[in-house]
Amino acid sequence: MTAPIHSHIFPNGLVLVAEPRPSLKSAAFTFLAPAGCVHDPADRSGLSGFTCEMTLRGAGSRDSRQFILDLDNLGVERSESVSYAHTSYSGATLAENLPAALLIYADVLRNAHLPEDQLEAGRLGMLQELHAVEDEPAQKVMLELRRRHYPMPWGRPAQGEEKALQDANLGDIREYYRRHFQPKGSILGVSGRVDWESLKDLVGRLLGDWTPGATESIEEQPAVGNYKHFPYESNQTQIGIAYSSIPYRHPDYFQAWGAVGVLSGGMSARLFTEVRERRGLCYSVFAMYHTLRHIGGIFCYAGTSADRAQETLNVTLGELVRLAEGVEDHELDRLKARIKSSLVMQQESSSARSSSVAFDWYHLGRSRTLDEVEQLIDALSARGINAYLKEHPPQDFTVVTLGPHQLEMPDGVL
Amino acid sequence: MTAPIHSHIFPNGLVLVAEPRPSLKSAAFTFLAPAGCVHDPADRSGLSGFTCEMTLRGAGSRDSRQFILDLDNLGVERSESVSYAHTSYSGATLAENLPAALLIYADVLRNAHLPEDQLEAGRLGMLQELHAVEDEPAQKVMLELRRRHYPMPWGRPAQGEEKALQDANLGDIREYYRRHFQPKGSILGVSGRVDWESLKDLVGRLLGDWTPGATESIEEQPAVGNYKHFPYESNQTQIGIAYSSIPYRHPDYFQAWGAVGVLSGGMSARLFTEVRERRGLCYSVFAMYHTLRHIGGIFCYAGTSADRAQETLNVTLGELVRLAEGVEDHELDRLKARIKSSLVMQQESSSARSSSVAFDWYHLGRSRTLDEVEQLIDALSARGINAYLKEHPPQDFTVVTLGPHQLEMPDGVL
Repeated sequence: MTAPIHSHIFPNGLVLVAEPRPSLKSAAFTFLAPAGCVHDPADRSGLSGFTCEMTLRGAGSRDSRQFILDLDNLGVERSESVSYAHTSYSGATLAENLPAALLIYADVLRNAHLPEDQLEAGRLGMLQELHAVEDEPAQKVMLELRRRHYPMPWGRPAQGEEKALQDANLGDIREYYRRHFQPKGSILGVSGRVDWESLKDLVGRLLGDWTPGATESIEEQPAVGNYKHFPYESNQTQIGIAYSSIPYRHPDYFQAWGAVGVLSGGMSARLFTEVRERRGLCYSVFAMYHTLRHIGGIFCYAGTSADRAQETLNVTLGELVRLAEGVEDHELDRLKARIKSSLVMQQESSSARSSSVAFDWYHLGRSRTLDEVEQLIDALSARGINAYLKEHPPQDFTVVTLGPHQLEMPDGVL
Repeated sequence: MTAPIHSHIFPNGLVLVAEPRPSLKSAAFTFLAPAGCVHDPADRSGLSGFTCEMTLRGAGSRDSRQFILDLDNLGVERSESVSYAHTSYSGATLAENLPAALLIYADVLRNAHLPEDQLEAGRLGMLQELHAVEDEPAQKVMLELRRRHYPMPWGRPAQGEEKALQDANLGDIREYYRRHFQPKGSILGVSGRVDWESLKDLVGRLLGDWTPGATESIEEQPAVGNYKHFPYESNQTQIGIAYSSIPYRHPDYFQAWGAVGVLSGGMSARLFTEVRERRGLCYSVFAMYHTLRHIGGIFCYAGTSADRAQETLNVTLGELVRLAEGVEDHELDRLKARIKSSLVMQQESSSARSSSVAFDWYHLGRSRTLDEVEQLIDALSARGINAYLKEHPPQDFTVVTLGPHQLEMPDGVL
């Protein structure tokens, strides 16, 4: 069913990984630069995001305006984001426009102007985004949950902090760009109608002579964990619950994935059924797996009215704890049917695949075809997942709530 | 580039329109039932949404649980929504599972149980969703904008009102279902790997003997328009601005589309450039076209900090008014490049296409291929758009703001 995957490691460390899909007319790329927010200095939280914003304001032969005009002229649907580990640039367009788009992004990575006359407009944009989160309690509770659940600095939000963004100057941004935008640790994932050999040649010409720098290690502080309530005037309460899991690279990853799928994959999954359908307790409830390279976590969210918040918390925690008792074959069968269908649809999207092959490489040092993923999922059994759950029961929860009242934590869950 | 479109009108009025895409492995459907919220009785705002929620709680031979289990077993990625004109059910799955999925949805449309023992859980779900909007000011401001800009009941939000949802009983829901779920006005759009003749036979067997009912006309009240401020404790201000446009079925539609594209399509478009990039005034700004069958509207949003709200409003309104002075060829060329790329990506998604062919039929009584859309867009010229803008300048704005302070309206814009 799926296309083969090609990869090449350039001498400077840059990885190119591509999945040619001749039946498509589009091509998409995802560029991961090793410039994540874990590298923000302690008093400059948000510097990575601010740097990313500034890299889009002119690079190489293009000023800020020309950069935007050229990408629009090429029909590139683009997005950027900063995660704990990467600054990521993605784009999708007609296959014939891919080379011209990569040429522009090579400049973003190597020759950004970081212009002084746009510093304040960039800063205002960053501050606006930070303030916007204050008005989105569902997003805020999940940011706080991740911040408290992961060992610092891994849970740090890329949005940064008000004072740090106010204080950051052009020197900070140029220094961050110089140190963290480099080929070692960079991964370019491509999917769509591309010819592998021509693509490899092109990327070699654009980025083959990019000079590698030093990689920096991260000093880890223990996680805060526990329960924290943030008072918030509203008739709604936002609940976030997290517990630890294994990372994506772990040999048992698909067992962990299967367990969280039974909890929260599809309408028939346990959380949706027990919390929303049967009891009508909340308007939204889910659990999702998230991974760093060395650890993972399960992050649950429930949004509910304040007067039903305690019951929602109790029922949701109850389902998480009950998961350790195991999953059943029919639950797993449904999950497999759902995922099979979603893999086919993923295969039909060049954007989704360009991001998956890059993500895989970061975590595994190789990229899986969708056929391989399908085989790994086919091989799952309830017995295997239950053995995993016995060893890794959901426990030691981190809980964050946002709403008018603090909630009571049931005994033994923290 | 694109696939031909087949359509069939069954004797009972049901329309089937399908775009077979043999290169895909998935198939998607969008079912529009003529059960929009404009048909909610005046004291039962939200009844259409409540009815939709209840149709998913058991139909035909399946109870609520079995319905969800069967769809998950078929790998159907589903969603439902209620708009002013339709209750819509969408799904995408492996092509071979499409017939089984349609069989289930035929029961949702014709034989929903609307079970008494799930009424309260359904009601709680509806109320939770209504309350959640209160915590999402960006969504709230756009709902209020539409409510005030369109003649009533066309701008009515499908979420409904607290008291109406509290008061609605099972009799209301059954009556709404009986009157508005019917073949006359129903459209089933399909895209993906399907065989047209077999699909037509299947749909004929499932829905060909569905009995048509009467169609109901809508009594229209004048729009409220003007400026309305909603006080909201926050350091952010949400701004919504609307003005009237022609409907999708109008021969000049693509001129109107081109004008709003120059305003807000892509990063190089005017609103993003002037409001966000140059001035850093806000974290998000856009304008989008929306259509009813007989009228259309342009709806703009800007989210900003309270202290920059007045300037943001002034600059945004200034750009809207300035649009009447016309667009330039290079702006239109970029828009064409962007849309060409996005049409190709749309063609690669069976879900997007199943919804487009159904949408087209509702508005036009036929469905356009992507080739036809591309030709219409290629034919656009700045001269043509400017002639349109001279006749239809943005004016008579409806404005809604949500934040700590009321704003001052510049002269002559309301």
